[in-house]
Amino acid sequence: MRRPDQQTTMRETAQLPAGGVLGPYLQEQAGDFLRGLRLHREHSAPTDGGSRGTDEAAGALRRSARRIGGSLHTFRGLLDANWADQLRTELAWLSGTLAREHAYATRLARLLEALHALSGTSLPGARTPVGGPGTDKERAALGVGAARAGALLERQLTLARTRAHSAALQALGSSRFHAVADAVALLASDVPLAASAAAPAAEVLYGPVERAEKRLLGAVAALPPDELVEPYNEAQDAPWHQARLLLRLHRYADEVVRGTPDPVLAGAGKALDLHRDASEAASAAAAAARTPRIAPATAYALGVLHADQRHEVEAARSVFRETWPYAAAVTGP
Amino acid sequence: MRRPDQQTTMRETAQLPAGGVLGPYLQEQAGDFLRGLRLHREHSAPTDGGSRGTDEAAGALRRSARRIGGSLHTFRGLLDANWADQLRTELAWLSGTLAREHAYATRLARLLEALHALSGTSLPGARTPVGGPGTDKERAALGVGAARAGALLERQLTLARTRAHSAALQALGSSRFHAVADAVALLASDVPLAASAAAPAAEVLYGPVERAEKRLLGAVAALPPDELVEPYNEAQDAPWHQARLLLRLHRYADEVVRGTPDPVLAGAGKALDLHRDASEAASAAAAAARTPRIAPATAYALGVLHADQRHEVEAARSVFRETWPYAAAVTGP
Repeated sequence: MRRPDQQTTMRETAQLPAGGVLGPYLQEQAGDFLRGLRLHREHSAPTDGGSRGTDEAAGALRRSARRIGGSLHTFRGLLDANWADQLRTELAWLSGTLAREHAYATRLARLLEALHALSGTSLPGARTPVGGPGTDKERAALGVGAARAGALLERQLTLARTRAHSAALQALGSSRFHAVADAVALLASDVPLAASAAAPAAEVLYGPVERAEKRLLGAVAALPPDELVEPYNEAQDAPWHQARLLLRLHRYADEVVRGTPDPVLAGAGKALDLHRDASEAASAAAAAARTPRIAPATAYALGVLHADQRHEVEAARSVFRETWPYAAAVTGP
Repeated sequence: MRRPDQQTTMRETAQLPAGGVLGPYLQEQAGDFLRGLRLHREHSAPTDGGSRGTDEAAGALRRSARRIGGSLHTFRGLLDANWADQLRTELAWLSGTLAREHAYATRLARLLEALHALSGTSLPGARTPVGGPGTDKERAALGVGAARAGALLERQLTLARTRAHSAALQALGSSRFHAVADAVALLASDVPLAASAAAPAAEVLYGPVERAEKRLLGAVAALPPDELVEPYNEAQDAPWHQARLLLRLHRYADEVVRGTPDPVLAGAGKALDLHRDASEAASAAAAAARTPRIAPATAYALGVLHADQRHEVEAARSVFRETWPYAAAVTGP
């Protein structure tokens, strides 16, 4: 499965002790985490809720937390296993807590943009060649409902975002967080390697990397073929979300060995991110439609929006199948 | 633009007088029309509203009415122009009146089938791997709304269909219809050709056929590129509907010359039929959503349904672009 350009890089590290490859990677990520934390504290004046600087710092924190957690998972056998399991759990809690605020913000932006595209201009534009009265009425009806649906989504997702922001601030002030920060600070200077990490990388480091790749390939091969999928059944998104997580683990494991992210999976990874975003946006539209006492026009616009986002889910799957670089593993249409 | 296999057939008829090619075609279609009319009368006992036999007979009547009307339009210069214009107007009235009942019936079937596919089974099936509580709630909510939306559409479209059925029966009993039937009966024995129809087919018959093809190619080349299209703007469907009519005219003109329909455009024609059906089904869903005092869940399901049918519109356009046999004329994605 490895390509020639990877062979070269791997040959260079093959004879190093595994700890000499994994250790510096973890230390670098721990350093990034601590820098993100410092930045976050500098931008987190109490009056400064959710500024651009805080967002970026939180993003950097999440990025390194994911990479450390992923490596602790993939290379657990080369590390102090108890320590690795515990830190991984705590990092997952932290990055999950920090991700939520960002997720609500991007979900709202995505839904409002889609509503805007769906309802278009309410005035018949120069590009619309023939507009019968029925058609104008339809556009206008969607326009009114779309405006109300947008306001409803804005209210609901802004509230959720504010709550997530408070939860993130509370988490960052908690003793649980300080314990994580201390553990990462220790990791930056000293990686708790197992005795097996003294063996050459070729013997003990490449195995876990290849297992991560195999898990990804297996998950992608097991994705349900499009014919069997009910387009509006969001429960069927789960194997795709799982593939997204496995692709991320594979990418991080690959980073440890190659030093840089493997560009060949960038397109497929992006498609799975879009898949997740569209799937969650569709759920948010459906949830908003369950708000009691909304007007039929609002519910109608939310139905259109839900279907539109489910269509985006399908489109992301197509892009994934097109950009997936391994030939035979995808059962596509 | 003509392909080699067409050249052969056309060479055989090239030296015949144009009237010797056009006349028998019109007489054959007139004969089919009269057979359809006889069948329709046999099946139209007063108690027998909308049976399978009547549907088939009405379909046969419409089919030959469209072909006669199309030929009167394309080959107007080879015929008594006043007679051709008048009969064409009357045939358009007749086939439009007969088509409406059938259109409402297929539209309802299409919408109910789509609703069924969208709402799926309300029980979580064996194929759904992970179903969170949110997901189950979404499916159930769509299920309730979908059932009510289906009942609403059934009520509205069945009423429209019944009205169209009465209008068709009334039309078939009218003196206006009897005049059309008499004109077609005359056509079956005697085609009012112009003096120019005595010239060889190669000189006066192929020109109109090629002009019909050119009009189609021009309309297809002028279809708006997908990037400029607002997906939910039904006014933008008009150039596609126009291309559908021109394709039909081209097909009938080609039939006159070749004797059989040209199979190479069958896929593209089918795609444009689907485009029209999905476009009209989407309009019907949007119209149903404007019914006063419907429940939000019903409106939501109608919104999902509308978006689904608009998605089918887009899909039909893709199929059209894929099956369109002339290389350069389509500005696709």
